[in-house]
Parts: sequence; C-alpha cells; structure tokens
Amino acid sequence: MSVFELSTRSILDQLTTLAAINSDPSGGGITREVFTEEYTQANEHVAELMRSAGLEVRVDAFGNLFGRLQGSEPDAPAILTGSHIDTTLNAGAYDGVLGVIGAIEALRALQDAGWRPIRSVEVVAFAGEEPRFGSGCIGSRALVGDLDREELDTMVDRNGVSVAEAMRSVGLDPDRITEIRLDPDGVHAFVELHIEQGSVLERAGIPIGVVTHIAAPHDLRVTIHGAAAHSGATPMNMRHDAFAGAAEAASLIESLAVNSASRTTVATVGVVHVRPGAINVIPGEVELHIDIRDSDLQARTDVVDAFSEGLQEIATRRGLSIDVDTIRHDYPAPCDTGVVDAARAACEELGEQYLDVISGAYHDAMILGPHVPIGMIFVPSVDGISHSPLEFTAPEDLDRGVRVLAATLRRLADSL
Amino acid sequence: MSVFELSTRSILDQLTTLAAINSDPSGGGITREVFTEEYTQANEHVAELMRSAGLEVRVDAFGNLFGRLQGSEPDAPAILTGSHIDTTLNAGAYDGVLGVIGAIEALRALQDAGWRPIRSVEVVAFAGEEPRFGSGCIGSRALVGDLDREELDTMVDRNGVSVAEAMRSVGLDPDRITEIRLDPDGVHAFVELHIEQGSVLERAGIPIGVVTHIAAPHDLRVTIHGAAAHSGATPMNMRHDAFAGAAEAASLIESLAVNSASRTTVATVGVVHVRPGAINVIPGEVELHIDIRDSDLQARTDVVDAFSEGLQEIATRRGLSIDVDTIRHDYPAPCDTGVVDAARAACEELGEQYLDVISGAYHDAMILGPHVPIGMIFVPSVDGISHSPLEFTAPEDLDRGVRVLAATLRRLADSL
Repeated sequence: MSVFELSTRSILDQLTTLAAINSDPSGGGITREVFTEEYTQANEHVAELMRSAGLEVRVDAFGNLFGRLQGSEPDAPAILTGSHIDTTLNAGAYDGVLGVIGAIEALRALQDAGWRPIRSVEVVAFAGEEPRFGSGCIGSRALVGDLDREELDTMVDRNGVSVAEAMRSVGLDPDRITEIRLDPDGVHAFVELHIEQGSVLERAGIPIGVVTHIAAPHDLRVTIHGAAAHSGATPMNMRHDAFAGAAEAASLIESLAVNSASRTTVATVGVVHVRPGAINVIPGEVELHIDIRDSDLQARTDVVDAFSEGLQEIATRRGLSIDVDTIRHDYPAPCDTGVVDAARAACEELGEQYLDVISGAYHDAMILGPHVPIGMIFVPSVDGISHSPLEFTAPEDLDRGVRVLAATLRRLADSL
Repeated sequence: MSVFELSTRSILDQLTTLAAINSDPSGGGITREVFTEEYTQANEHVAELMRSAGLEVRVDAFGNLFGRLQGSEPDAPAILTGSHIDTTLNAGAYDGVLGVIGAIEALRALQDAGWRPIRSVEVVAFAGEEPRFGSGCIGSRALVGDLDREELDTMVDRNGVSVAEAMRSVGLDPDRITEIRLDPDGVHAFVELHIEQGSVLERAGIPIGVVTHIAAPHDLRVTIHGAAAHSGATPMNMRHDAFAGAAEAASLIESLAVNSASRTTVATVGVVHVRPGAINVIPGEVELHIDIRDSDLQARTDVVDAFSEGLQEIATRRGLSIDVDTIRHDYPAPCDTGVVDAARAACEELGEQYLDVISGAYHDAMILGPHVPIGMIFVPSVDGISHSPLEFTAPEDLDRGVRVLAATLRRLADSL
C-alpha cells in the first residue's frame, strides 16, 4: 500500500472553525441544531471544504450533504462515509463533526498520495442526528425512508416548531422528502468514524475501536401511582409510597442489566419526577424514564420482559398501580463482517492497536444498518465525556482515527 | 358530672365561616397563611367568637390570640387549650381550626350547663403553625422562647418576605418578641384537639384517639455525587450512577424504618432531584429530602445512624460521594400521664370508644411539651387526607371530639 500523509493541523483547524459557527447562548459550549441559520452556514463551509478536496457536491431534498469522489468503476456500488455536523445543546466540538471532517481529510490525503479509487467514495453529512425534534437521526431516517411526510408536521422541537417549518425556514421543501430514497444496491458499505462517548478505549489504553455491533435503545416511561399521604401520620404498613416502589424498580432494572445473558445490556433511569414533591408528603405519583440498550436484541427483550413482570410484582405487593409505555424502540445493528475486517486490516497495516467494541450510543450507521453493510471506527473520548463543552479527544488519536478511516476506505473502494 | 349540650351546628357554621376567609387563588381549597390580611381578619372573627362565649381576649406581641375563662382560683396554674387557624397552601377546613373553634364551643357549652371552673381555662390560637417561613410552629416557638429576634429577619417565605416584615405588615412589632415568654409555672396542662391527618382511627373504626406521644421529625438532605455519562456508551461496571445509589438509599431507609426497634419509626423520601435529568445521561447528582420520625427518640437516632453508615457503604461500593445534612431536628414529646388519664376518663364518662395513638404529625403541643404537661385528642380524617381541599371529618366525629375535649378540660380544671 502506498503511504499517505494526513494534516493533523487541518483536522484541528476545521474542528475549530466549525465549533465557532454556533449559537450557544452561554458561550461555553457549542449549539448548532439542524435546520438553523448556523447549521446552514456550517453546511456551506463543509461543502466548500469538500470542493477543495476535489469532491463533487450535492445536497438532497432533506438537506443531507454529499461530496463524491468518482471511482474508475462509476457504476459499481459506492462506499459511503461520514456522520453529522449538527450538535445537541451546549455540546462539544467532536461528536459527529469528526466523521465528516475526517472523511474529507482522508480523501484529500489519499488523492494527494496519488490514489484513485475503483469504487466511488461519497462523504455524507446527515441532516440532523441529534434529537432537536425528539427523535434523533432524522437525516439518515429520511434517506432510508423511515420518515413520512406526515411526521415532518407532527415532530416538533422544544419551541413547538415542526420539522417541516424548520426545513422551510432554511429553504428546503418538505413535500420533496419522497424524492430522496437511498438505493441500497448503489452502496457497497457505509463507514462512520466517531468519538467513543464512553471510556472503554481509554481504560484499555487502546486508541482505536472497531465497532462490531451498535446497541439500540428500548426506552420506557414507567408511571407509578400510589397514595399521597402525611409523612408523619401514616404508619409504614399503611403506605402506598410511589417512590418506595420506584426505588425498588430502579434497583431491579439495574440488577437485570448487570445479570443479562448478553453481558452487554445497559439500563439507566435518567429522568425521575416525584409528585407532589414535599418532604412531609408520601409521594403519590412517580414517573421514571428508563433507557435500556443492548446490541443483542434477544437479551434486551428478555430484560424488558423480566422488568415488566417484576414491576407487576412490586405493584401487587405494595398496592400500587404501574403503567409501562414505550417511548422509543430501535433495533440493534450488527456491523458487516466485510467492513469490520477491512477496518481491522487497516489497523494492522498502519500498526495501530485496536479493540473490538460495541457502540452503546446510537448513530446514523444504526439507521443505515438494515439497508446496507455498515461499520464504525471509534477514537477515545477523554474521561468518556460527550454532549458537553468538555468533550475532548487528543490530537494524536484524531490523527490515528482518520488514518484508519482512510486505509479502511481505500481497502473497501479497491475491492470489487 | 353535669350534662352539657354542644351545638354541632355552631361548630360546622364556624368552620364554614373561617373557610371563607381565605386567599386561595384556585378557589378550590383554603389558603390563609399567618401574618396576612386574611389571617388578621380570621383572628378578629375568632376573638369576637371568644368574647361571645364569655372569654376575656388578649393578643400577645407575636400575634398569639388568647381567650380566658377565669376560674374560681385565679392564681392556680391554668389549663391551656387550642391550636392554630393559619393554613398551608390550598388546604382544608379542619386542620388546626377545629382545635380553636372546638375549645370555644366546649367552654360555651360547659358554661351554659352552669359550670364554673376552679382553674382558669385559656383558649389559644397560635400565630403560625404551618411552615410559611420554612419552619412550622413559630407562634408556639415564640411563646416558649425558641425563636430569637434575629431569626425573625433570617426566616423568609417563598417570596423572600421575612417573619419580621410580615409581622410589621399586620401591625406587630418584632422587637417586642422577648416580652411574650410563657411562664410554665402558670400552666397546669395544655390540651389540643386536632384531626388525625392519618387513617389509623378510620381503619380501627374508633372515633377518638388519645395521643400518648407526639413523634418528631429528623429531616435529612442527602446529596449523592456520581459521574454523569452517556447512558448507551457506559457499561454497567464502569458507572457511578447517582440515582442507582439513591434508589438503594431509599430502599435502605424504608427497610430501617420498617424494622426499627420501636415499630413506630416512619421514613419518607418526599423530594427527589435528579441531575441532569435526561433519559440518555446517567445521573451525575441526586438530592433526596428524607423525613424520619418517631415518638421514640432512641429508635429514631438508631435509624438515622444506621442509615448514615449504610450510605457510606453504598458510596464506597459504588464509587459515589454522599453528603448528609440535617434540615430539621425536633424532639419527640411524650404526653403527660395526668392529661392522658383525664382524656381517657372523659371518653369513659361520655361512653366514647377511644384508642391510644401516636401523633405522627407534629403540632404546637410538641413545642410546648418540654415546658408544660401536654395532651392531645384526635378525631378521624376520612381516608387520612389532610393539607388538601378534600380534608374531611364527619360532623358526628367533630361533635364527639369537642365533647371529649370539654369533659377533659372540665376534669383538668376542677382538679387541684
């Protein structure tokens, strides 16, 4: 394989430039939500960057941005790579952006070293991976046909603005959403470079993660109804304490995740509302939002089922009533063996240590998974921090990640 | 003993009249906080009622309202009886008010039946039992010297108004607080009639509770510091989940209360704050406000100590740090045997079934307990509901309670 030279400086400069295009009110972090003025400006900057790397730019009807490097066999299924450049609120500089900037830099460096791909390689910046409108990955969902025209009106952000309204505000026509369906036969593989957003790599002291599975969440809303009563005047054996039941439920889901057959299930009670919320009143109602994830669908289903059964036992024993609703339910995506093997081979070619990892976070790759062969490459997140202004990945790890991405793209694009 | 005739109609009319003097914005419940215009108006109405029952009215420098029936031995220590006429927000008609209205009606009925007491009997409406300024029972605390001049400036309500400012707004001079110290030698006993605010009497099917002990709260603020992290990207064994620790803490305090040596300890986690509070973020910090009560101080102390030890074990095992602060710490008050016996004898005299009960709620009697002999009489609360517009006690139970109060006052006032 020929040698190629990355510009780490260029990667850092582009991350810094994009970080500056934001509307964060506090000034401490980065806020650049999809279909905003800042987002449009950032997209234009990335399009320009694509052009200067010799890529042919197009934007689809949903605002997904593509930059194509034509292969010597233009009719062969192409390699797709990229991520997203929108952010959540008060976020960091790396999440998503690295996968777009890194892919452009990889293609620039490979071309500068004289490489011309057999398959075409296309860099994509998906329009909206972060959940501005409640549900994440709308750009990739739109691309694979998982988003209806109707949903563009019903999905709204925290200010009540619908996807359709937001699209119109940046010059996109929501009625054209049906035009953009991805043809799976035209894609040989999708590869996404991303920060880990956890600390598995950091703790292992290994700079590259080759993702073998992407876990998907089954999110539950558990509402526990008890009886509010005076905290002093109600003996312990006369209580129907909704929070005492909630505490038991939280310990149960934790224990079920820890002891799951897959050993990869995670469960988090992240939102807790206790009503009425006074120190001298036994809680009458508690709402828990619980995120249960696994790359192993059967294991996740078993945990959810066992939890539901356990909740009924808690309800009966404590004289509570418990409602369980699904907020969100996605399917785990296994990565494609061919893509995983290409990434591993790229690491070996470059002399980089790697670890097979599971992505606990979801990504656009998860949405593409059921339609085309996918794979992901992770670089370490310092202290596992993400969705925070403190998000950080060391420059040498950024460099390693982009080099592994480049070598992986080259292998995939050159194998017919 | 001579027969006396209560006017149940009068009790109901007065409860209704006082219920109408309120500023509840929703109109569904009663809001009449101490040192407000409505409170002053209600106090004036009660003072008029006292006068029409032949009582000599005075108001002390803190706004505590007294109505005295002179005994034939005016220098003998007097019998004090009463409760409070302020309410919490959106409250009911009975809490506190019954003990004041009931005492006036009891003295009217006894006098109408020709009774003249040996000891003087004084009805009191304490200025502020509900916690407008954070801490309850300020009227009785002021009376026994548990409230400093300085605290009148530092204790503020939810709008930042201090006790001193509120006092001035209704024409009281906070600087005169030192004038009102109760002389314990002048009080033979204090008896308070109150609704139960729990459902022990209702479940037992017994209309009168003779209180033997008043439980007191030890309120804790428990702050649990963990590490916020991505709910998907952080395996279960790498977590420092503050809410998982909080759930375990809540189950622990419940179990310690249930298994307490006294069998009367109660513990309630009524306030729960989870930060940052997003479904896809492992909670980094949780704050719990916990109310632990018992009439048995040693048992309560043992529970608090065992809980603190257990929290440290949870913190160590889970890699959390846990801070425990005391929000409030009161002493349980045993009722005086002489007062308890008088109340029991009154029930027997009237042919009323009674149950010895513990007051889980605190009352002004708890504050007076360390200074003078105290006792309380409870009537049932339907469904245990209190601090709610739905608070209700059946008219026949109100009648029974006031009759038992009257017979108790008569026994205490006539025994030298």
